[in-house]
Amino acid sequence: MRSGEWNARDGASETGVGSPRTVLGRYLAVLNAFDPGTARIALAQLTVRTGLPKSTVHPLCAELVGEGLLERDEEGMYALGIRLFELGELVPRHRTLSSVALPIMEDLREATRQRVHLAVLDGIDVVYVGILGAGVIDVASRVGGRFPAHATGVGKAILAYSSAATVKARIEAGLPAVTSRTIATADGLIGELRKIRSVGMALDLGESHLGVACVAAPVFGADRRIRAGLSITGPAASIDPGVLGPAVRTAAFTLTRTLRDAGL
Amino acid sequence: MRSGEWNARDGASETGVGSPRTVLGRYLAVLNAFDPGTARIALAQLTVRTGLPKSTVHPLCAELVGEGLLERDEEGMYALGIRLFELGELVPRHRTLSSVALPIMEDLREATRQRVHLAVLDGIDVVYVGILGAGVIDVASRVGGRFPAHATGVGKAILAYSSAATVKARIEAGLPAVTSRTIATADGLIGELRKIRSVGMALDLGESHLGVACVAAPVFGADRRIRAGLSITGPAASIDPGVLGPAVRTAAFTLTRTLRDAGL
Repeated sequence: MRSGEWNARDGASETGVGSPRTVLGRYLAVLNAFDPGTARIALAQLTVRTGLPKSTVHPLCAELVGEGLLERDEEGMYALGIRLFELGELVPRHRTLSSVALPIMEDLREATRQRVHLAVLDGIDVVYVGILGAGVIDVASRVGGRFPAHATGVGKAILAYSSAATVKARIEAGLPAVTSRTIATADGLIGELRKIRSVGMALDLGESHLGVACVAAPVFGADRRIRAGLSITGPAASIDPGVLGPAVRTAAFTLTRTLRDAGL
Repeated sequence: MRSGEWNARDGASETGVGSPRTVLGRYLAVLNAFDPGTARIALAQLTVRTGLPKSTVHPLCAELVGEGLLERDEEGMYALGIRLFELGELVPRHRTLSSVALPIMEDLREATRQRVHLAVLDGIDVVYVGILGAGVIDVASRVGGRFPAHATGVGKAILAYSSAATVKARIEAGLPAVTSRTIATADGLIGELRKIRSVGMALDLGESHLGVACVAAPVFGADRRIRAGLSITGPAASIDPGVLGPAVRTAAFTLTRTLRDAGL
């Protein structure tokens, strides 16, 4: 795993740990055994990671290989299969947004030369659905990666325009201090979200990674509800919110308008 | 579906059609009911698309929603869930390659101002794992999209360096004429692949979309086997292979070297 990556196992949606009882749970226990730091797993290790006996795991794997959800290499190691990637690319909360957003993100990337992030909220975390400017800065964000919403610019931009119930769920799940600068109290977060609404953008000043700063703005769907967060991220010294704020807000307005015009 | 998109149902990996007999097959029948043109499906339509009775489909959907693989909106329509996107982003044949390739693709995009494609072979088709330059030209390629390998620049660049068994599998599955210019005979394809090996790059002159041209080069993994195809695509009039060939080959060499240095 790249340093600083937030593991989905720490988050809300982990399903495959322990000894799963449903049939679907058993298939998912095998798929969930893989993580960003573990691309290939041997059968013996899969039995450990799933908590299922080898006599159960082996036929599950054979079925998953048969359907292209797993691949087995010449050394007998298992990896997630390309069919899973194809299915994942059809997920509308990612695909509709990303396909409309990509040209706008490319413009923002070209105008600012910083890294551009697009993320959606899933429960209490953000999931990154698009990233451009890979070489700019060595932070661990990756497409498909998950991060606690309160500790990121995109997450705070989304939470500021989310329902009270959504904000409450984040607070009740805890506000882990990802860095020493993360806003880790309920009062602090509620005040911060009020401030974000008053200026129309969110700042992340070392809250997700020390030394890294981010300016983020909210994106709304055709139903006028909050849909995503768009941000510019770079080394703290190179991020001037007075300069980059108008750029990221312009792009977020453009994306919102484009989604509305397309009825998406 | 966007015009010209090749549907996975026409390809090799379709599993959900008919009345699936295995448990995994039934879950996949539900997930495979979605396609690029069908983001949201009502329960009644799912029973038609899966060939399963409503009394079976309903509990399958409830389980899939519980695991985040499906999402159900306020109108009761189902869509593929964000958890599926997260899993798909962990697929190493996509992720490892894309994360290493993205900065190089951004450079190629900036230097040429054309659309840049990165694809891998899956069976007899290519699957696009990365695309930049979304606004350049209105062709239907999309990340996660599938296309017959013999009818694309990236696919021919990969086939030219693949095993004889792989080329044979493509020929035996048929060589559909996607356009009037597609190379649709076995002899034609074998001669074309020989030519590609002699010059180190593949051209697509209206073979995937009339009026669209493409210059592609092969990318090799650390094991020295063919790993992917990298290409530049644009309106036929703007693609000069003499000019763009060296650019795409340079980027493909760089990507090959980067993969080798990283042992990937």
